[in-house]
Amino acid sequence: MTINITLPDGSKRDYPKGSTAMDVAKSISEGLARNVLAAKINGEVWDLSRAIENDADLQLLKWDDKEGKSTFWHSSAHLMAEAIQELYPTAKFTIGPPIDNGFYYDVDFNGEGFGADDLQKLETKMLELAKKDSAFLRASVSKKDAADYYSKIGNEYKLELVNDLTDGEITFYTQGGFYDLCKGPHIPHTGHIKAIKVMSLAGAYWRGDEKNKQLTRIYAITFPKKSELDAYLLMMEEAKKRDHRKLGKELEIFTFDDEVGPGLPLWLPNGGAIIEALETFAKKTENEAGYVRVKSPHIAKEALYIRSGHLPYYAESMFPPMELDGEKYYLKAMNCPHHHKIFGATPKSYRDLPLRFAEYGTCYRYEQSGELFGLMRVRSMQMNDAHIYCTEEQFESEFRGVNDLYLKYFKVFGIDKYIMRFSTHDPAKLGQKYIDMPEKWIKTEDMVRKVLINSGINFIEVPDEAAFYGPKIDVQVYSAIGREFTLATNQVDFAQAERFDLSFTNDKNEKERPLIIHRAPLSTHERLIGFLLEHYAGVLPLWLSPKQLNILPISEKYHEYSQKVLNLLKKYDIRGLVDERAEKTGKKIRDAEIRKTPYMLIVGEKEEAEGTVSVRKHGGEDLGSMKTEDFIEHILNQIKKETE
Amino acid sequence: MTINITLPDGSKRDYPKGSTAMDVAKSISEGLARNVLAAKINGEVWDLSRAIENDADLQLLKWDDKEGKSTFWHSSAHLMAEAIQELYPTAKFTIGPPIDNGFYYDVDFNGEGFGADDLQKLETKMLELAKKDSAFLRASVSKKDAADYYSKIGNEYKLELVNDLTDGEITFYTQGGFYDLCKGPHIPHTGHIKAIKVMSLAGAYWRGDEKNKQLTRIYAITFPKKSELDAYLLMMEEAKKRDHRKLGKELEIFTFDDEVGPGLPLWLPNGGAIIEALETFAKKTENEAGYVRVKSPHIAKEALYIRSGHLPYYAESMFPPMELDGEKYYLKAMNCPHHHKIFGATPKSYRDLPLRFAEYGTCYRYEQSGELFGLMRVRSMQMNDAHIYCTEEQFESEFRGVNDLYLKYFKVFGIDKYIMRFSTHDPAKLGQKYIDMPEKWIKTEDMVRKVLINSGINFIEVPDEAAFYGPKIDVQVYSAIGREFTLATNQVDFAQAERFDLSFTNDKNEKERPLIIHRAPLSTHERLIGFLLEHYAGVLPLWLSPKQLNILPISEKYHEYSQKVLNLLKKYDIRGLVDERAEKTGKKIRDAEIRKTPYMLIVGEKEEAEGTVSVRKHGGEDLGSMKTEDFIEHILNQIKKETE
Repeated sequence: MTINITLPDGSKRDYPKGSTAMDVAKSISEGLARNVLAAKINGEVWDLSRAIENDADLQLLKWDDKEGKSTFWHSSAHLMAEAIQELYPTAKFTIGPPIDNGFYYDVDFNGEGFGADDLQKLETKMLELAKKDSAFLRASVSKKDAADYYSKIGNEYKLELVNDLTDGEITFYTQGGFYDLCKGPHIPHTGHIKAIKVMSLAGAYWRGDEKNKQLTRIYAITFPKKSELDAYLLMMEEAKKRDHRKLGKELEIFTFDDEVGPGLPLWLPNGGAIIEALETFAKKTENEAGYVRVKSPHIAKEALYIRSGHLPYYAESMFPPMELDGEKYYLKAMNCPHHHKIFGATPKSYRDLPLRFAEYGTCYRYEQSGELFGLMRVRSMQMNDAHIYCTEEQFESEFRGVNDLYLKYFKVFGIDKYIMRFSTHDPAKLGQKYIDMPEKWIKTEDMVRKVLINSGINFIEVPDEAAFYGPKIDVQVYSAIGREFTLATNQVDFAQAERFDLSFTNDKNEKERPLIIHRAPLSTHERLIGFLLEHYAGVLPLWLSPKQLNILPISEKYHEYSQKVLNLLKKYDIRGLVDERAEKTGKKIRDAEIRKTPYMLIVGEKEEAEGTVSVRKHGGEDLGSMKTEDFIEHILNQIKKETE
Repeated sequence: MTINITLPDGSKRDYPKGSTAMDVAKSISEGLARNVLAAKINGEVWDLSRAIENDADLQLLKWDDKEGKSTFWHSSAHLMAEAIQELYPTAKFTIGPPIDNGFYYDVDFNGEGFGADDLQKLETKMLELAKKDSAFLRASVSKKDAADYYSKIGNEYKLELVNDLTDGEITFYTQGGFYDLCKGPHIPHTGHIKAIKVMSLAGAYWRGDEKNKQLTRIYAITFPKKSELDAYLLMMEEAKKRDHRKLGKELEIFTFDDEVGPGLPLWLPNGGAIIEALETFAKKTENEAGYVRVKSPHIAKEALYIRSGHLPYYAESMFPPMELDGEKYYLKAMNCPHHHKIFGATPKSYRDLPLRFAEYGTCYRYEQSGELFGLMRVRSMQMNDAHIYCTEEQFESEFRGVNDLYLKYFKVFGIDKYIMRFSTHDPAKLGQKYIDMPEKWIKTEDMVRKVLINSGINFIEVPDEAAFYGPKIDVQVYSAIGREFTLATNQVDFAQAERFDLSFTNDKNEKERPLIIHRAPLSTHERLIGFLLEHYAGVLPLWLSPKQLNILPISEKYHEYSQKVLNLLKKYDIRGLVDERAEKTGKKIRDAEIRKTPYMLIVGEKEEAEGTVSVRKHGGEDLGSMKTEDFIEHILNQIKKETE
């Protein structure tokens, strides 16, 4: 009896019935078998050791796969529990899931003290146990046996979990001396875990309910190689220094205020200058790419969002309504419905298309207060938004145009590493999860795929993750220290034109629905500036710097000349200030360094007499004395170079 | 027995007790007596013929005075009633007040038909009666006599009005054969009314309640000179052509949508282009004047508006709250509270002042739906807002700076006629209507007055109309056809710094409160663009035109060259399009004329061969053939000239 296994590249192989994913890995190569951590069988993650009884799609998961990592960390949580059990035999375990970076376990230490001082001891014990190469073994257990076990050892938490489960579906896993209720899956053995860092601890209530007992949550992270842990810890240390909340405060870029409200940033003048620079740049770029600008209010009647479908489907991400003249008004969570109304306001012909409506529209979304995080998770967001209305023939070239914008922006911001996640539909779910327009799906997905390949874009295709109304692309970028940020989303939309009854007259004089592309390559000001602060560690490039230079007169005698220089610079839209404080020049330079000001122009008797400035760059480079006009040319060239 | 009369210039004269305002007028000059219409006695408007029994302040009112006009129109309403009574003896009169432009009377024609065809007949009769120079005579009547009179003639409306009045305070007026319940005052006689236009009629419910009987409302306007009526009718005709709602639709500048909501304009790409041009210009001007830009969300918690005092005092002009996480959030009706929070976010020293925070902030105000009017009365408004925080020593120069901005803008927009209404406090109302800081009031009002005079600003001073927290200036401008628009308000504020606990450290190292100036010289985009559309009759100056030029290829062969020219122009931020329709050039020119496009560039074989364009200006002027580079220089010079 054989079963037929289909691999991700589409190749098919036969194996004896009851073979495991590890058998498949070994049949491909021994090296692969050494590195594989788990397997995806028909879309579900399994242990490598589970017998496969029927034909199946199979994908082997390694460390670099998202599910590989999370299986690795889940198994590491079991390893941590095993270590705790050895060190604190009366500890009771509750839950221990993997998270974005590592894992945690919530433990009731049952009166025994466990504090920050004990983290190192725990780490050492985990390393010692990991070296034993203990296999993770899976066993089915009846509900009664499971309940009896936890009653016997007196773990009321696990008992509560068991009671919620269905008999016949309960499994336990064992590794070394640790035995745990768990649905898995796990990596083959603890030997894969070579590097461990127990990070921190925190209090956490059982089941998140503050009426319950407080448990000790222990965070940790593990890696298959020591070098990866070192790199991670270095990145975390660097990220701490580059924390946009810390830099935003130090550089006076933004603030929050209790009386204004959480998640609603107030932008101080330095932040305002960055926003202006970004908008001027975006508008120029969009203008050259043929966009036109529209402007819409931040509210609309309920009727608009019922038409768009945001109500009721998106209601919980929206702010609650205001009742006015017997009608409900909502803050906009997206600009699209307003733009569609603008498109529909006047009749359109095929000659008017493509139409590209751009707006820096501020949207409001309800995020739970616990989820708010600096500029990265906010309630008000200024979006670099635009909607492109085009014919099917124009779609490919329009979509390429959007990608070209992305690539241009990546270059300008020095983003070397990015990935686009191209989410497609599942034909089996047409009419349910996806709008039932099969040809449109196939056609637009083909076009998108073709453009991505032809433009040499780094992308992965993710089936069954499209939006309801069309395929989408999520753009993930990596900061200079390698942290991942989801910056923007691009969506194709063939549903809204219908809902808003948008049409154009084609060259055969018939009504036709336009295709719509939603795009926001520069994300929101909030998320982009948050990212850039980390990416540049606060040392923004010249064109984005709130103050591009400080003029430092060496004494009061040169204030007038300094102001004259500043006024001249202003005419060229160069942003600067004169530091007129009665401080030594050395102190003025140090302060400008702290503020990350790109240029310092030192002026005294010689400079005034010769009409020059002595130029020092941030970081210390000395450009010497320059005619003011030459400096202007220098700085304008620099800005031009940075934004091209 | 004499009484002492004080005239507006402060001069005092004695008259016999019982003298009338007409006696006073005659004592000054016969010419004045011929033109005077009514008088203000101790702030109350009186008939010229009423006997004055005590010492009094007296102001003679003529046609050019606001109250002179409204008395004139009120008397004209009586004249219209007299004419109706002659033509339709069974008509019943209700109320007939003056309005902004003319007056109306609501009449129950009691079954007799009165339609649009009858307006001319009514006008003729009014002119005939006016010529009789019938005097308006005042008589006190007891409540019983008044009620008996209206019972007898069967006018239930006036009877209802009489019943609401207090016995002893009821007066009737007679002119010619018309006798009317009226508290006056009136002009001396009908002979002043030389020019009459009965404009239109409409339905109106008695007391505005649709459960009551529908009456006929007849609108009319009158003047003391025929030439003034002619000028008025010409202006109205011109205003109709220049109606910003009509032009806004024809030129595709803005639109409203039922599903978005009333009073919430959607700006089409042409409107978006005008807004961009205005903002770029304003930001450049403000940047050169030392403003910095901030950015704030459109909502805030209730707490912010309680602190600012908007709640509860301004609550009915605000949108209703949204309930979120157990807190109330409001849409902002003004930007000041947010800006004050930004000021307060970091410590300030006297060296940081003056600080000028500018933001094009969109505010939301609740206007009743019946009061909404095109762009002039809206619910969402994009304000050219800024707040200046300064020391007392800096106030005068800062206030002058704001005035300089106004004068610059008047010049740029070709506004030849304007007036600033300078509203001051009343010392008797300190602590009630006005914040109780007497020295601050006197000091800032003196400074404002001095700046207004020194800058040669055309202003009038209006006592007892200041804001609660400081003196203010309302700026009224007149469009090219002489219609008045209230564009902007400037306010001095010495209360908010206290409420928000804003301070700076002065040079003696003490805490001090800043003075605050609120200013918005370019008003809101909505109001300014509405005004400019009328002012320019839609023919916007080059720098504001949504499309600055159309390129008109004489055949398809020159499309490519046209696009090349357009791309070159775009690099200089010049806005244009290529008219690629398969139409004759004549038709393309006509269409560009209708769209008020400033330049048309005609290109054909010769132009392509020589690298030139044939330039035609809106209105027909032919600039002949120019090298494309020369045309760019020409148009950029033009824009520069317009905005300097």
